[in-house]
Amino acid sequence: MINVGIVGAAGYSGVELIKLLLNHPEVEIKKLFGHSTVGSKIEEVHTSLRNMISLEIEKFSSEAIKELDLIFVALPSGQSFEAVSSANQNGVKVIDIGGDFRLKNIDEYKKYYKHEHTAVELLEKSVYGLSEWNEKDISKADILSNPGCYPTSVLLALIPLVKYELIDETPISIVSYSGTSGAGKSLVQNMLFSEVNESVRAYKVGNHQHIPEIKQSLEMFGGKSQKFSFIPHLLPVTRGIYTTIHAEVKNNADEQMIEDAYYSCYKSKPFVRFLGQSVPEMKDVAHTNFCDIGFKLNENGTLVVFSTIDNLVKGAAGQAIQNMNIMFGLDQKTGLLAQHKKSTKE
Amino acid sequence: MINVGIVGAAGYSGVELIKLLLNHPEVEIKKLFGHSTVGSKIEEVHTSLRNMISLEIEKFSSEAIKELDLIFVALPSGQSFEAVSSANQNGVKVIDIGGDFRLKNIDEYKKYYKHEHTAVELLEKSVYGLSEWNEKDISKADILSNPGCYPTSVLLALIPLVKYELIDETPISIVSYSGTSGAGKSLVQNMLFSEVNESVRAYKVGNHQHIPEIKQSLEMFGGKSQKFSFIPHLLPVTRGIYTTIHAEVKNNADEQMIEDAYYSCYKSKPFVRFLGQSVPEMKDVAHTNFCDIGFKLNENGTLVVFSTIDNLVKGAAGQAIQNMNIMFGLDQKTGLLAQHKKSTKE
Amino acid sequence: MINVGIVGAAGYSGVELIKLLLNHPEVEIKKLFGHSTVGSKIEEVHTSLRNMISLEIEKFSSEAIKELDLIFVALPSGQSFEAVSSANQNGVKVIDIGGDFRLKNIDEYKKYYKHEHTAVELLEKSVYGLSEWNEKDISKADILSNPGCYPTSVLLALIPLVKYELIDETPISIVSYSGTSGAGKSLVQNMLFSEVNESVRAYKVGNHQHIPEIKQSLEMFGGKSQKFSFIPHLLPVTRGIYTTIHAEVKNNADEQMIEDAYYSCYKSKPFVRFLGQSVPEMKDVAHTNFCDIGFKLNENGTLVVFSTIDNLVKGAAGQAIQNMNIMFGLDQKTGLLAQHKKSTKE
Amino acid sequence: MINVGIVGAAGYSGVELIKLLLNHPEVEIKKLFGHSTVGSKIEEVHTSLRNMISLEIEKFSSEAIKELDLIFVALPSGQSFEAVSSANQNGVKVIDIGGDFRLKNIDEYKKYYKHEHTAVELLEKSVYGLSEWNEKDISKADILSNPGCYPTSVLLALIPLVKYELIDETPISIVSYSGTSGAGKSLVQNMLFSEVNESVRAYKVGNHQHIPEIKQSLEMFGGKSQKFSFIPHLLPVTRGIYTTIHAEVKNNADEQMIEDAYYSCYKSKPFVRFLGQSVPEMKDVAHTNFCDIGFKLNENGTLVVFSTIDNLVKGAAGQAIQNMNIMFGLDQKTGLLAQHKKSTKE
Repeated sequence: MINVGIVGAAGYSGVELIKLLLNHPEVEIKKLFGHSTVGSKIEEVHTSLRNMISLEIEKFSSEAIKELDLIFVALPSGQSFEAVSSANQNGVKVIDIGGDFRLKNIDEYKKYYKHEHTAVELLEKSVYGLSEWNEKDISKADILSNPGCYPTSVLLALIPLVKYELIDETPISIVSYSGTSGAGKSLVQNMLFSEVNESVRAYKVGNHQHIPEIKQSLEMFGGKSQKFSFIPHLLPVTRGIYTTIHAEVKNNADEQMIEDAYYSCYKSKPFVRFLGQSVPEMKDVAHTNFCDIGFKLNENGTLVVFSTIDNLVKGAAGQAIQNMNIMFGLDQKTGLLAQHKKSTKE
Repeated sequence: MINVGIVGAAGYSGVELIKLLLNHPEVEIKKLFGHSTVGSKIEEVHTSLRNMISLEIEKFSSEAIKELDLIFVALPSGQSFEAVSSANQNGVKVIDIGGDFRLKNIDEYKKYYKHEHTAVELLEKSVYGLSEWNEKDISKADILSNPGCYPTSVLLALIPLVKYELIDETPISIVSYSGTSGAGKSLVQNMLFSEVNESVRAYKVGNHQHIPEIKQSLEMFGGKSQKFSFIPHLLPVTRGIYTTIHAEVKNNADEQMIEDAYYSCYKSKPFVRFLGQSVPEMKDVAHTNFCDIGFKLNENGTLVVFSTIDNLVKGAAGQAIQNMNIMFGLDQKTGLLAQHKKSTKE
Repeated sequence: MINVGIVGAAGYSGVELIKLLLNHPEVEIKKLFGHSTVGSKIEEVHTSLRNMISLEIEKFSSEAIKELDLIFVALPSGQSFEAVSSANQNGVKVIDIGGDFRLKNIDEYKKYYKHEHTAVELLEKSVYGLSEWNEKDISKADILSNPGCYPTSVLLALIPLVKYELIDETPISIVSYSGTSGAGKSLVQNMLFSEVNESVRAYKVGNHQHIPEIKQSLEMFGGKSQKFSFIPHLLPVTRGIYTTIHAEVKNNADEQMIEDAYYSCYKSKPFVRFLGQSVPEMKDVAHTNFCDIGFKLNENGTLVVFSTIDNLVKGAAGQAIQNMNIMFGLDQKTGLLAQHKKSTKE
Repeated sequence: MINVGIVGAAGYSGVELIKLLLNHPEVEIKKLFGHSTVGSKIEEVHTSLRNMISLEIEKFSSEAIKELDLIFVALPSGQSFEAVSSANQNGVKVIDIGGDFRLKNIDEYKKYYKHEHTAVELLEKSVYGLSEWNEKDISKADILSNPGCYPTSVLLALIPLVKYELIDETPISIVSYSGTSGAGKSLVQNMLFSEVNESVRAYKVGNHQHIPEIKQSLEMFGGKSQKFSFIPHLLPVTRGIYTTIHAEVKNNADEQMIEDAYYSCYKSKPFVRFLGQSVPEMKDVAHTNFCDIGFKLNENGTLVVFSTIDNLVKGAAGQAIQNMNIMFGLDQKTGLLAQHKKSTKE
C-alpha cells in the first residue's frame, strides 16, 4: 500500500485525483490538505464524494506528512514551493501537478509565471513527468513535475515527428481548444457560464505559460529545437483538449514513414491510441487517461496531426497517477485502465 | 422621438436593452450611466456593440437626466432608489427593471430582499408593469416597475385560470427552470461554466424573492389568493425560462373552458402565443418578446400548464420596452415585433 | 467469474455496460451480440473502447449463449422477447434493460408500448429490479427486468413517503428533466444538436410508458395506490435526470418524520444518498450509480422532494450490474463503488 | 418594395432568412416554396414563426414566381438548378444560398460535390457574392451565388494579406470550428445531441467542398494563388464559426503594415469589424451580420489571424440579404444593422 496525501484537494484536479485514487488497488488516501477549507470534511466541500470518502481537510505541515509515502500537490503556480520542499526534506516523494517545477530555466519561469522561483535547488532534482517519454527518470524521481494539460496533448503528437526528423524547419502551427475545467475554480468574469456558453475565443496569445514548456520538451525528447506557434482557445465544454497541428514534412516523408514513427514510439504505450490516418474525437477520451492521435498528409506535403485528451485525467490527475505507478514500480495501468480479461480467441 | 437614458448599462439586461432600443424607430439613446465603468465607451465594455453604438458611460446625476423623457434602471436590488427618485423629481419617467418597486408590502420586501426599502413614498406611485394585465395603469405611469422574469412566465400562464375560477384551492405547484443570464454577471463560484454545464439544481427553495411577487399579482390580477409552491432551477443554457404548473381543476372545468379562458385573455395580445393543447418549446421564444403557453388536462382533473419566455426579453428588457410603448402611446409591438406585411390572399 | 454476454451492445446502454463491466472484478465479458453491426469489432463501433476490449459482435443464437451465466439485453422495446426466452430455456440468467418485462399488466403494456406482448408466460417469472426495494426477489430471479430511468429517480424518492403514509391523497406532481442519452441513438429530427441545444421541452405528456411503471411500483412497494401526474422534459445535457416532486403531507407529518422515513429506508443502502433538507445537484451523480435525494417542507404543508440520478448508470447499466451482484450473491457495490479503505479515526 | 420568394423555406437558412426579411423595410415575402412541406403553413413547420408570418408553403413552379422580383434558393447542393434556371428565364433575380454556383470550374464542382453540374450555361452568368469584395459585379447580378459559411470567415481574413502581398508562399494553415446549424437538419447519427455535446472532432479533412471555393476566391480577389490547408471542426454550439489562420509574413511586414492593409480594405465596410491586435470572441457576432477580425504577429514572423462570424447570418442568410440590398441599390445595411441615431457630440 502506498500511503498518500493530497495538498490542494479543493480544486478540480484535487477531486479528480481523489476519485481516481479511490479506484486504485495499491493506494490509501491518508491525508487531505487545504487552505480555506481546513476543518471541513472533503465530502462537504465536494458533495459528489459523499459515501465514497470521509476525511477532514487539514492544514499542511511537515509533521502531518511524515508517515506518508507520497504527496500530490495540486496548487496554483507559485504556491507549491513549501509543500514540495517539506516533502523532499522528509523523504516523502512528491508529484507536483502545478506548473512550478516544469521549466528548467528560471528566467523563463519568471517571465511566463510572473513571479520568482523560490526553490531553485529543488528544480534540478525534479523530473518532468511526460510518462511515455521519460519513464526511466520518472522511475527514480523523488520530485516529479507533472506536465501541463496542453503540453501533454501537443508533445505526444509532436515528439515522434521531431525525433524521427520527418518535418522540416518551417514553423509548426499548433491550435488547441480546451474545456473550462483547465482554468480551475478561480472567479473571473469571463469564465461565467453566460460568457463561455455558445462561444469560443483564443486567449493568452503569445504569452501562455505552456509555450516554454512545449519548447523545452521538444528539445529534451525530440532532440532538437523547432519553431512553433501555440494558440490556446476556450471551448464550451467542461473537459477535454483538442489539438490540431500543421507541419511541413521533409521531402521524402510519406504516410508510411509517419505511421512507422508513431507505431514505434507508442506500440507499447497503453495510454496512447494511435489511429493512423483517422481523426480522433474528443468524447472518446473523456474520463480516461488516453491520448488519441491521428493524422492526414496532403498532396502539398502539409501534415496535419490531431490529438485529444481529457485535460483533468491525462492532462492532470491521471498522468500523475501513471507517474506514481512508475515511481513505485507498479504496472502503469494500475487503477487507470481496466482491460478485457480475455480475447475471443485464446 | 423618445429620448432615453439607461442606468446600469453594463449588465446583461442593460446590453439587451441597448440592442433592442437600437431597433426601435421612436427611441434615441441619449445617455448611459454606470458605476465602475464610468469613462469607458459602451462598445469597449460590451464589445458586441461595436459599429452599432458609441457612447461614453457617465456617472448618474440629476443634472444629466434633465433633458430625457425616460430612464431605464437596470441595477441590482437596493440600488435603484436614487435613480428612480431623481427621475421622478425631475419629471422624467422611469422604468425600473430591478426588483425594488415590485412588492407593495415593504415588510415582504425587507424579508425577501434582505434590506430596507428607502423610497416607500414612491412605491405608492409605482405601477406594476405586467403588460398584458395592467395596460391602463401602465399607460399613465410615471414610475413603472418591470416584473421579474420568473413571475412573468408564471403569471401569464396562471392568471387566466384564477380569474376564470377554473382551478380549486389545492396548492398549485410551479416548477421553473431558468438559464444563467438571469443571475447576471456577479462572480459566484456556482455560476462558473464548469459548475453549471451538464448539471441542474434547484435553488432558493422557499425563499426566492419572486414568491411574494407571484402571490401579490395573482391577487391583483386574478382577483383572489391562491396557495402555491414555486421552485426555481438552474439550467445549462444562457437564455430562457420554462415553467411547468400543476393545478387541480374545478369539477366542471373541461378543455374547452380552459381554452376559452386563455383565448379570451390573450386573443388581442400580440406577445402571448396560446398554443392550446400543444406543448411549447423554449427555443421558439429565444430572442423574442413572446410568451408561449400550452396545456394538458388529464383524466384525474389535473391540469398541467407550460409556459416559456426569454428571460432577457419578455422577462426583462423586452417587456420594459413594451411598457415604454404603452406609456408613450405607441403600438406596443413597436421595435419588438416585425410582422409579415401582407397575407397570401389579399 | 461470471461469464456474461450483452445483446444490443451498440446502443448507449450497451457501451455503458461494457465500460462498467470491464471494471468488475468478478465478471468476464464473453459475447457481444448485435444486429446491423454483426461482424464488426466492438471497438470499431464504439471507438472509445479501443485498447480496452476487442470482441467481435455476433449474431444472437441459443447456441452462442449456452456457456454463459448471464446475458444483459439492451434492446428497444418489443425486441427482447427472443433473447429473454432463449436464455430462460437454456438456463442462462437474463437482465433485460429495456421495457418489455416491466409491466405486469399486458393491456397496459400494449397501450403504452403500442405493440403486443409475445412472451406473457415469462412475464410472470420476471422480477422487477428496483434494487433497493426488491432485493429478496432479485436474489432469486432468473429473469430480471431492470427499471426505467425515470421510474428509478421517481420511485426511490416517493416510495418511502407512500409506505410510511406521510402524504395525503392529493395528486402528486412529478416534473422530471432528462438528458438526451435516454433517447438512445435513433435518428429523429428533434434529437439533433441544433434542436436540443439551448432549449427545453416537455414531451409525451400523459402517455409516457413510464407512467404505468411508476403506478405499478408505488402499489407494489409503497403498498397503496396514489394518484400522480408525471411530466418528462428534455434537457440539453447528455446524462442525468432531475426530478422535482410536489405532494401534500398528512396533517401531522413534520420534517423529522420525513427524515426518519428516508433514513429508515436507505440507511443501509449504499447507492441512495439522502441529503435531508438539502437540495441535490445533477453533476454530483454523473457517472455514478448514486441516487441523491433531498426535500423541503413548506408552511402550507407542501412537501417538495428532489431526486437525481445518471440515467445511463443508476437508470440503466449501473442498476443492472447492481442487480447482477444481488443475483449472484456478491456485495451489491462490487464493480460500482470504490470506497475509501479507511476512515480518519480507526 | 421588393417582392421575394424563398425556395427551401424549411431549413435553418430558410427560417433565418424569413426572420431577417420580416425586419427589412423594403421587402415583402410573397411566396414560400417547399417539397415535403407543401400545403403546410410555414408557422406550423417553424413554430417559432407564429404571430410573425402566416404563409402556405407551395410547390415551386415557373408560374408561381412570375410576379416576384427575387427568389432566394436555400436547397442542398445539386437541387437548385431548376429554380435558378426558371427564375433566370422569367426575368426574376435569384440568390442561391447553396453551393451549386460557387465554383467556376465544373470539374472541381463534380469532384467535391460528387455529382454533375447540369446548368453550366448559368454558371457563367452567376456572380460570386462575397459582399465586401465583389460589390460592383453584385450590383449588376441576375444570378447571385452566396458564399459558403467557412469561406466567408476565411476569405475576409485572408484576402487583404494576399492582396497586399504581406505573406510569403509558405502554406497557410486554416483551422476552423463551426456550430452545428451549418450541417442543416439532415438526419445523421453523428449530429445527434449526445454525439456532439461535450465533444469536438475534425471532419472532411482534405475533401471539404469549401476548399476549392477558398482557392478560387483567393485568386479572384487576392490576385494570386496561395497554398493552404483548411481543416473544419465541429463545435458543440448551434451557431458560429471561429477561424484561426497561421501564415508566415514577408520579411519586411510589420504590425503597422498589417493593420493598414485591413483598415484600407474594410474601413468603409459596415459588417467587418477589424479589431487590430485584439482577439475576437464568437458570441460578439452571434445573431449579427458582422465578421470580427483580429491578429497577432510573433517574433518569428508568424502571423496569426482570427476571424469569427455567425454561420447562419454572415455565413448564409445575412450575407444573402446584404447582396440583395446591393443588387437592388439599397444601402447594404438595410434590414441588417440598426445603428445609433446620433453620437454624444453633435
